[in-house]
Amino acid sequence: MRTIAYAAEAVYASALMSAVSHQVRTQYHELIPEGDVLELFEGSLKGPVILAYETYGTLNANKDNAILLFHALSGSHHAAGINTEVKHDNDIWTEDLHEGWWNDYIGHGKALDTNQYFIICVNYLGGCYGSTGPRHTNPETGKAYGSSFPHVRTVDQCKVQASLLDDLGIKKCHAVIGPSVGGMLAQTFATLYPTRVERVVSIASSWKTTVLNRLLLFEQILAIENDPHFHGGDYYHTNGPTYGLALARMISHKTFVHIDMIERRANRDVQQAEDHFAWYTIRDSVQSYMIHQGKKFVHRFDANTYLRVCEMWSHYDPLEEVGAASAEELLKPCKDAGQQWLVFSVDSDFCFYPEEQDELARHLNAADVKHIHLTAHSEKGHDSFLLEPHLFAPHLDHLLNRN
Amino acid sequence: MRTIAYAAEAVYASALMSAVSHQVRTQYHELIPEGDVLELFEGSLKGPVILAYETYGTLNANKDNAILLFHALSGSHHAAGINTEVKHDNDIWTEDLHEGWWNDYIGHGKALDTNQYFIICVNYLGGCYGSTGPRHTNPETGKAYGSSFPHVRTVDQCKVQASLLDDLGIKKCHAVIGPSVGGMLAQTFATLYPTRVERVVSIASSWKTTVLNRLLLFEQILAIENDPHFHGGDYYHTNGPTYGLALARMISHKTFVHIDMIERRANRDVQQAEDHFAWYTIRDSVQSYMIHQGKKFVHRFDANTYLRVCEMWSHYDPLEEVGAASAEELLKPCKDAGQQWLVFSVDSDFCFYPEEQDELARHLNAADVKHIHLTAHSEKGHDSFLLEPHLFAPHLDHLLNRN
Repeated sequence: MRTIAYAAEAVYASALMSAVSHQVRTQYHELIPEGDVLELFEGSLKGPVILAYETYGTLNANKDNAILLFHALSGSHHAAGINTEVKHDNDIWTEDLHEGWWNDYIGHGKALDTNQYFIICVNYLGGCYGSTGPRHTNPETGKAYGSSFPHVRTVDQCKVQASLLDDLGIKKCHAVIGPSVGGMLAQTFATLYPTRVERVVSIASSWKTTVLNRLLLFEQILAIENDPHFHGGDYYHTNGPTYGLALARMISHKTFVHIDMIERRANRDVQQAEDHFAWYTIRDSVQSYMIHQGKKFVHRFDANTYLRVCEMWSHYDPLEEVGAASAEELLKPCKDAGQQWLVFSVDSDFCFYPEEQDELARHLNAADVKHIHLTAHSEKGHDSFLLEPHLFAPHLDHLLNRN
Repeated sequence: MRTIAYAAEAVYASALMSAVSHQVRTQYHELIPEGDVLELFEGSLKGPVILAYETYGTLNANKDNAILLFHALSGSHHAAGINTEVKHDNDIWTEDLHEGWWNDYIGHGKALDTNQYFIICVNYLGGCYGSTGPRHTNPETGKAYGSSFPHVRTVDQCKVQASLLDDLGIKKCHAVIGPSVGGMLAQTFATLYPTRVERVVSIASSWKTTVLNRLLLFEQILAIENDPHFHGGDYYHTNGPTYGLALARMISHKTFVHIDMIERRANRDVQQAEDHFAWYTIRDSVQSYMIHQGKKFVHRFDANTYLRVCEMWSHYDPLEEVGAASAEELLKPCKDAGQQWLVFSVDSDFCFYPEEQDELARHLNAADVKHIHLTAHSEKGHDSFLLEPHLFAPHLDHLLNRN
């Protein structure tokens, strides 16, 4: 008998201990072979185009138990278990990435139960963890793509993942799930392919990109562009725009974590040597903590990938992606297909404010799409979806298993 | 008979029209002569040290009608009338600075009534509008100070302004007034010299620097430091860190203006040619508007001054500046001196949240200092203190003239 362990944080912690021992491997799918071309919303990309992904659980004979999970801004396809290797990108596949980012939610008897479901998580196209991206060698030139790598929109990400599902023989998903930026992908996938999706989960995400999002993303883009080592994106012969990328990460990091927590962590955790810049010297534990976050990120992420994901998010518009004239037109096919949505906000989220999910819920309501809308009360801010499974897992479990 | 015109915005607008015709001149005071040294909280500065300032109205025979006004982060000593020239810095004294920043509040019959008071506003030490600062020539080397210009703390700014008052023969101020960062200076001046101040006004400001302030200021410092043209602060032979300074301004600008207003302004006002960076192209009116704000700022401000003011704000602690062990110890002399405080918040202020002024009001209350604490309800955000005199002037007038 399956046991759902979501009553207390402690139970999750012990479940986590068993899950992390499970070794997984990155899988690579050649989506577009050499000689063929992938057409994108803007521009195109010549094959070979590879998607890196992981799966957990087993695809059943009817191929109707798949759950497609979308990762966040700087996340990866590695959602559960332990994975120590990613081809072509192992130099930035640092040890803190080896444990799956949603271990607490995925496994035997967990909300995304691997006894029942076949869970798929794909590294974004243009990513830096195995899927074809700007830091990989362009077979046409023998050099890294760099600045020549195209812009990738949300709808492009959904289309390439749908192609992967086609190739795996999966016509319809039991659910699509996305936290943070992944929630926008889940939403677009569900509206682009209404009959391929039964359930949709959007956690700590948004109906559309807000002005504040666009301002913060633009600051991050400029932080990278202004770095003397950016070289227009063709920086792979150097260390790259490390200070710019660190600053970009600091700008976003303050929205992921509750501000009070930054101060607490800064005072407790980080006791590192003084940092000197050209003129300025850090003398403050909060600055030191933020620099630490920025530097850590530089070791594990590619600035060109970061730019493309920031741009994807910045330009995200749910109607434009799919080509609908109104929210009602966009969502009517979802209602007709009988989709069920679960919309989760976090009250202390400074990255995606709860009001943003309210807007999604209002549109679902107006279009008469079945949905549940909940706000988790937490002191952990946006990252609550990673840190507090006990707040989200029971409803996820209920939507997936009891409906 | 003096007429107080504060009943409606329209009245202020017409009062403004008459005020702006009034020509004023920058005055320069040699605070420290050549050969002498100004000791600072950290480090020192060799003379000559000049303070640039303006005055409005006439100092009376008793010299007891002075009001000391502190400007904001990137403001100047030019608070009222028209001033077309600032010595040594006229190249960045751009036309949009020629009109005083608080014209609506200062003049005949206004809240800061020039028929009654002698109002003084001083450009910060380390500034770029006439007071000795990093872009000025260091007489010892014949080159710009640049990186060798010392750090300047809030308490230093207060001490040099107190010296100026000494030299003008002013023992006690009728009031000290500061909006935004100026509010912290007013607070420090009043607590450092409790018997020299009768009234204290802090508008859209804060008791102390918050973690969020420190994060945003650090981002701005790094944006400048990361610019390839910063050269450690010794950039005066080049165009300087223009992109870094523009990015810094963008980071702060979003906190000055209500986010909705940014979107409205962006859609309405700014239709400029597309901006191209090394890789990224602006395609969005909000980004275009922000770049416009950033670029405009670069023409009128010096990056080294900006760094020093950011650092001054970042390190501001009301107790440390004055050397008090507690808020009560700090404020008891203010109570004993019979000071009256006016504390004003703006509900939509994203730069100094109303909670920050709440904290100041709580300390005043606990120390039994006479005070009034008000929150203005506005849709204009932090900049309300500049844009909506009708919200603030009546109480200012009452405090200054009827008490």
